[in-house]
Amino acid sequence: MQELIDKIKRDGVVRPGDVLKVDGFLNHECDIDLFDRMGAEWARLFEGRPVDKILTIEASGIALACIASLHFGRVPVVFARKSQGKNLDGDLYHAVVHSYTHDVDNNVIVERRMLSKGENVLIFDDFLAKGAAIRGLLEICRQAEVNVQGIGIAIEKGFQSGGHDLRAMGYDVKSLAILKSMDGETGTIEFE
Amino acid sequence: MQELIDKIKRDGVVRPGDVLKVDGFLNHECDIDLFDRMGAEWARLFEGRPVDKILTIEASGIALACIASLHFGRVPVVFARKSQGKNLDGDLYHAVVHSYTHDVDNNVIVERRMLSKGENVLIFDDFLAKGAAIRGLLEICRQAEVNVQGIGIAIEKGFQSGGHDLRAMGYDVKSLAILKSMDGETGTIEFE
Repeated sequence: MQELIDKIKRDGVVRPGDVLKVDGFLNHECDIDLFDRMGAEWARLFEGRPVDKILTIEASGIALACIASLHFGRVPVVFARKSQGKNLDGDLYHAVVHSYTHDVDNNVIVERRMLSKGENVLIFDDFLAKGAAIRGLLEICRQAEVNVQGIGIAIEKGFQSGGHDLRAMGYDVKSLAILKSMDGETGTIEFE
Repeated sequence: MQELIDKIKRDGVVRPGDVLKVDGFLNHECDIDLFDRMGAEWARLFEGRPVDKILTIEASGIALACIASLHFGRVPVVFARKSQGKNLDGDLYHAVVHSYTHDVDNNVIVERRMLSKGENVLIFDDFLAKGAAIRGLLEICRQAEVNVQGIGIAIEKGFQSGGHDLRAMGYDVKSLAILKSMDGETGTIEFE
């Protein structure tokens, strides 16, 4: 999606350690107009797929998923939570996900009643790198016996293994911008 | 807002310790259609107020804030983060907020460049009880020297002090449903 690529080129900041800061418009401040056009683009890419629910993971995925829902018949958005607080009880689906950003293992959970066997689910997230978060959501989908119709990603780090692995497993991954390389020294980014 | 009150009566579950579980539609699964009508109601309640940005706090506030933005000229949504990861560096506004749900102190942060002096800000969150999270966001607004035009809340626990205190401080708090009492034993809820 050219608009997103242009926005990353203009406002994204490359940091050492393959970190791309896009918090000015994607995951700290949210550009709602851009998100709306990203939702329209995902709707085009996933056209014809039945969608009963959208699944994402807190926190950065929520904003994208909710605006994307406007383009998929306003289906409910379920966001997986990263820890078990007092308010989450009862039967849970859960998976352990390693966060490379914060270097911790998170227990990712979804209450069982949020997903019903046979439902058609689209997964959305802001970033795809090694794919840890998405694999956690897929494990929850496996437990819930829902049909994963596709995976919508804003920015894929194409030089890491996540996207390749998920596509090799047969998942339909649609990333709106795929980075070919990043250089923390010079601050340059190349796109596929 | 009668629709929200009816939804809480039908789908909300009262637990001991003044916990109201509304994760079936508000803060785990998100009812996007309902959120859209809540956004319209907040737009009616805050009509005439200048709004440059919407401020909320991860994670549950994000979905409401993003859909609400559609009714306030699609202004950018900034969500405060609860811990400092590798991707958040530079100058930060911060406040310490106690989470009664998880019984921990969170360091709530917003990057300085996300809020500019003199901007008009609306704050949104899903719950208002003792007001700890909102007071954290207000402290960040004070540091940023922005104008807080109002505070939009989905569900206010009217039997706790937060709403009263904030209104006494002069803030325009608009809660779409205000609980007068909750009884964890009988599961009953009364609304104001």
